[in-house]
Amino acid sequence: MNKVLDFYFDFSSPYAYFAAMDVNKLAERHDLTLQWHPILLGAIFKKTGAQPLLSVPLKQDYAQHDLERTARLKRLPFIMPPKMPFMSLAACRAYYWLKQQDKTLAHTFAKNVFKAGYQMGLDISDIGTVTDLVAALGFKADEVQVGLKDHSIKDELRSAIDEAQDAGVFGSPYFIFNNEPFWGYDRMPLLEEWIVKKGW
Amino acid sequence: MNKVLDFYFDFSSPYAYFAAMDVNKLAERHDLTLQWHPILLGAIFKKTGAQPLLSVPLKQDYAQHDLERTARLKRLPFIMPPKMPFMSLAACRAYYWLKQQDKTLAHTFAKNVFKAGYQMGLDISDIGTVTDLVAALGFKADEVQVGLKDHSIKDELRSAIDEAQDAGVFGSPYFIFNNEPFWGYDRMPLLEEWIVKKGW
Repeated sequence: MNKVLDFYFDFSSPYAYFAAMDVNKLAERHDLTLQWHPILLGAIFKKTGAQPLLSVPLKQDYAQHDLERTARLKRLPFIMPPKMPFMSLAACRAYYWLKQQDKTLAHTFAKNVFKAGYQMGLDISDIGTVTDLVAALGFKADEVQVGLKDHSIKDELRSAIDEAQDAGVFGSPYFIFNNEPFWGYDRMPLLEEWIVKKGW
Repeated sequence: MNKVLDFYFDFSSPYAYFAAMDVNKLAERHDLTLQWHPILLGAIFKKTGAQPLLSVPLKQDYAQHDLERTARLKRLPFIMPPKMPFMSLAACRAYYWLKQQDKTLAHTFAKNVFKAGYQMGLDISDIGTVTDLVAALGFKADEVQVGLKDHSIKDELRSAIDEAQDAGVFGSPYFIFNNEPFWGYDRMPLLEEWIVKKGW
C-alpha cells in the first residue's frame, strides 16, 4: 500500500491553516510520508467558476462564524487576515525555493507562514514578510529575493498547480491518499477512518 | 433552552437525502422538535452566484465519487437521479399543502420523496410522481392537483424560501439550532456535539 499522503492547500485558505496544524500528527499516527503542495487556487477557480469563500454573500458570514467556533473547539489561536482574499504567490514560491535547499525546512516554513498569518496577524501576502520568514530559518534576505525570481521556481509552482488540477483538486485543503480524495478540513476525520480501514 | 432543530433542504440535493435519513434519530436522541423546511435553492443561488454541485467542473466528479462512498459508509442505498440538477417545485408545494392537512404526514411524505428519488430512481421532479406519492398517503389525485395550484401554497413556499434566506441559508442540507447554523451533511456530528455541549 502506498504510504504517501498528499496535502494540497492555498496559504490564503483559513481552513488550510487548521489542517496544517493537525496534518503532521495525522501522518505520524499512521506512519505516512506527508507531501505538502502549496498552490494558488485562483487559476483553478477560473475553471470551476468558484469564488473565494469569503467573497460569497451569506456563505462568507457563515464561514467567518464557523472559523471562529472551529478555533474554539480545536483550542487554536485564530486571527482573520485583514485582507481577504489575498494572493499567496510569494509564500508559494518561497516554499518551492526552500524545498530545493532542504525539504524539512520547507515544511517548517509552511507552518510558520500559517502561524504568522492566522495566529499573529502578519500580512503573509507581502513579499517582505515572506522573505523575513525564510531568512529567520538561516538564509540571507538577498539570497531569498534572488531565489523567488528564479525561473525554475516559477516553473515549479506552475507545474505544481497544473499537477493539482490534473489530480482533481478544486478547493483547499485537499488531501489525496492512495488516489482517494478528501476535500475540506472537516473531512480529516473521514480521511483518517479511510486510512485505518483501508477504504470502505 | 430552545429545543427546536430547523432542517432546511432542497429535494434536489443528494446530501440532503442522507441527512433526511439521519435527522429524525438525531432529534429523538436529544428530545428536539424537528422542523422540516423544504426550499428551492435556485433563488438563493442567484444571490450567492453558486452553481448546483453537480454542474461544477472537478467538483462534480468529486461529489459523484463522495456520494457513492458516503452511501457505502452509511450502508444506505443510493441512486443518482438521471436528471441533475432538477427543480423540486412540485415536491415542495406538495409538502406545504400536506402540512396544512397533517404535519406528521408531511414529514412522512418528505422522507418518501427522498427515498423515491435516491433509492428507487423515480423522477421526483415530475408532478405525476409527486401526486402519486401524496395520493399513496390517503388522498385523491385530483384533490392533490388542485391543492398544488392553490395560491396560499405558492405563497407559503415563497415565504419559506425568503425566511430561509433571511436566516442565512445558502446550501443544502442546512441546520439551525438555537441560532447556531451548520451547513452540510458532514457537519451533523458537529451539530450533535454542539447540542450535547450546549455550544463551545
